[in-house]
Amino acid sequence: MMNFIQAIKSAWEHKDTLLCVGLDPDLKKIPRHFRKMDEPLLEFNKAIVDSTCDLVCAYKPQIAFYSASKAEKQLEATIDYIHTRYPEIPVILDAKRGDIASTASMYAKEAFERYNADAVTVNPYMGGDTLDPFLKHKDKGIIILCRTSNPGAADIQDLESNGKKIYRIIARKASEEWNYNGNVLLVVGATYPRELKEIRSITRDIPFLVPGIGAQGGDIEEAVRNGMDHNRAGMIINSSRSIIYASPERDFSAAARNAAMNLRNEINLYR
Amino acid sequence: MMNFIQAIKSAWEHKDTLLCVGLDPDLKKIPRHFRKMDEPLLEFNKAIVDSTCDLVCAYKPQIAFYSASKAEKQLEATIDYIHTRYPEIPVILDAKRGDIASTASMYAKEAFERYNADAVTVNPYMGGDTLDPFLKHKDKGIIILCRTSNPGAADIQDLESNGKKIYRIIARKASEEWNYNGNVLLVVGATYPRELKEIRSITRDIPFLVPGIGAQGGDIEEAVRNGMDHNRAGMIINSSRSIIYASPERDFSAAARNAAMNLRNEINLYR
Repeated sequence: MMNFIQAIKSAWEHKDTLLCVGLDPDLKKIPRHFRKMDEPLLEFNKAIVDSTCDLVCAYKPQIAFYSASKAEKQLEATIDYIHTRYPEIPVILDAKRGDIASTASMYAKEAFERYNADAVTVNPYMGGDTLDPFLKHKDKGIIILCRTSNPGAADIQDLESNGKKIYRIIARKASEEWNYNGNVLLVVGATYPRELKEIRSITRDIPFLVPGIGAQGGDIEEAVRNGMDHNRAGMIINSSRSIIYASPERDFSAAARNAAMNLRNEINLYR
Repeated sequence: MMNFIQAIKSAWEHKDTLLCVGLDPDLKKIPRHFRKMDEPLLEFNKAIVDSTCDLVCAYKPQIAFYSASKAEKQLEATIDYIHTRYPEIPVILDAKRGDIASTASMYAKEAFERYNADAVTVNPYMGGDTLDPFLKHKDKGIIILCRTSNPGAADIQDLESNGKKIYRIIARKASEEWNYNGNVLLVVGATYPRELKEIRSITRDIPFLVPGIGAQGGDIEEAVRNGMDHNRAGMIINSSRSIIYASPERDFSAAARNAAMNLRNEINLYR
């Protein structure tokens, strides 16, 4: 079985890329000619994957884009396609799950057995015991929400407790308590470069999943300079919409490849 | 379309029950004779629903128990069965979703269009803007995690900011900022009666979904006395395992009915 953290580190080093492409296909936004197909999301994903496979360190399907339209089978088939055709590329299931331990075990089963994902995003609000059912999967990446990329992230995450913001407390718990199997990562948004720097200083070499580049407007240079680890890597920088919807026409996959290549190169410029 | 809060209030008053039964069927735990069936979880749920329908104010399927085993269709059919046969009983989809707004819209679509649920549980860690795509559904119940029932709930929820614990801040935001459509509820665990009382005093008549009774060990008397609103209601008290697994044999539905009736009556004793 693939070890997620090793696979990511290997891609950073040997493929020279920190880029992750988010596979969040929306039937209303993908090129028209897919809409008549039996499995439009799967076929769209395959084309995106085939055209970007040498440029990415991971793919990240967002599960809501499949479950909203009863397309679980297309998600299974997408992950299976990547694993079969590109066995070195890990797949992150973006699901942001979190529940009491007995239920969290079911969510871990969903992510790792049903979908065979290599990593999953989880929400820490309910506490450490709700993360354990995920963390015990040593070879999987457990990616904990820390400082997210959205405008309202500050509502809870920036509250201060004993002079420390909640996201700092999460970052410290992640590195000191929750990383007992060495499989923890953190979600830190590119839209907040100062916080990226702060969290990097707390967590040393814990890898970050960094959303917020592209449609969400995060600055690439600032994000990279502030988020890198001491190996000038340590970041899985995700973009979804700016790549998969680079063109709404039949040239979408070439356009996606161009957008991915430009972003990969721009990221590398600042490393 | 059913208005969730009205349906719940009507059940509290006219059916004289605060009980909610959690439909979290695990193939390993349901009676053996179901296991050979094509749709074992659905058939088990139907039997539980038919035997407890007059005793509950709501049903609450936990989505992980279905998605872990590719049983989305059985979840759809379970909710459809309840709506068709018992149109006055609302269904809460326990999913604890939370993501940036564009993704949260997809999760809202999953809960309210795909599954046709009357309410959904959501996680507030990512902030108010991630709740809006749910909150705009005026007739649906949006049940926000506040103080959960699990042992590790204190890790994040009890951190103090300006002398106020996070769960108090969530409770206040829920009543003062997020309840602009009058459709907000809060998750407050029965295992922490002191916190129930505190949150009740902050939120006045916002209804609570109260897990933690039964297998999780919460004390019924303390929970009811501390969580009631001024109408001696205001709580949807959930039990899953202690009811649906009251017997592992062919008498499971009669046993579930007994367990539900005893719990309903015990709750009412303290109102």
